Amino acid sequence: MPRKTTLSIEPRYRINYGRKFAFGPGKAELLDHLARTGSITEAAKAMEMSYMRAWQMVKSLESGFAEPLVRRLRGGHARGGAEVTPTGREVLRLYRELEDAEAAATKESRARFAAFLRDA
Amino acid sequence: MPRKTTLSIEPRYRINYGRKFAFGPGKAELLDHLARTGSITEAAKAMEMSYMRAWQMVKSLESGFAEPLVRRLRGGHARGGAEVTPTGREVLRLYRELEDAEAAATKESRARFAAFLRDA
Repeated sequence: MPRKTTLSIEPRYRINYGRKFAFGPGKAELLDHLARTGSITEAAKAMEMSYMRAWQMVKSLESGFAEPLVRRLRGGHARGGAEVTPTGREVLRLYRELEDAEAAATKESRARFAAFLRDA
Repeated sequence: MPRKTTLSIEPRYRINYGRKFAFGPGKAELLDHLARTGSITEAAKAMEMSYMRAWQMVKSLESGFAEPLVRRLRGGHARGGAEVTPTGREVLRLYRELEDAEAAATKESRARFAAFLRDA
């Protein structure tokens, strides 16, 4: 019998195609911060990661999608400037829709599954 | 505009709690093979992995859950013998239920998301 537990399984929706990882919670959060701040430096700060790591995530977004999600602005004082394109906003919106659909559809089964997990 | 594409995103439902991975497609497949064959050796063969890797997955199942999902049988000629417990069968059933719920709920949004991915 499953025990009573306070554990819960929080969904982290990851999108892979083939064996390759394309999009997930981290990239969604990065797009959120870029849309808000227009700056890779500020987004990196908000996510407590290095500028280099955030920049690599932006590069990875560029390689995984058919059209740019982020437009990097170069030169001048706008080091690390970046704006989220309309495509980027649509991808982010769709991802949030996927997250919500998954979370709602699995809520009950997740609670039942969690009862079997060992409390850490 | 998203392009026409033949890409599709196949769900791989992973269950994490906290930052720890608890259960996913690989462990589910392992339980399936153990239930069918009663043998870690046979399960490893079916999954084209080493006996050691399969054995480590069984150990990891033991550490993540409050009750045993697999009972290992020791000694004699039954090296690597293993049976899936009733709890293990219930966990596997719940996982398949979660997979199905997720796949059904996200089908349409996944198709729309996939149209933005770059064909590899």
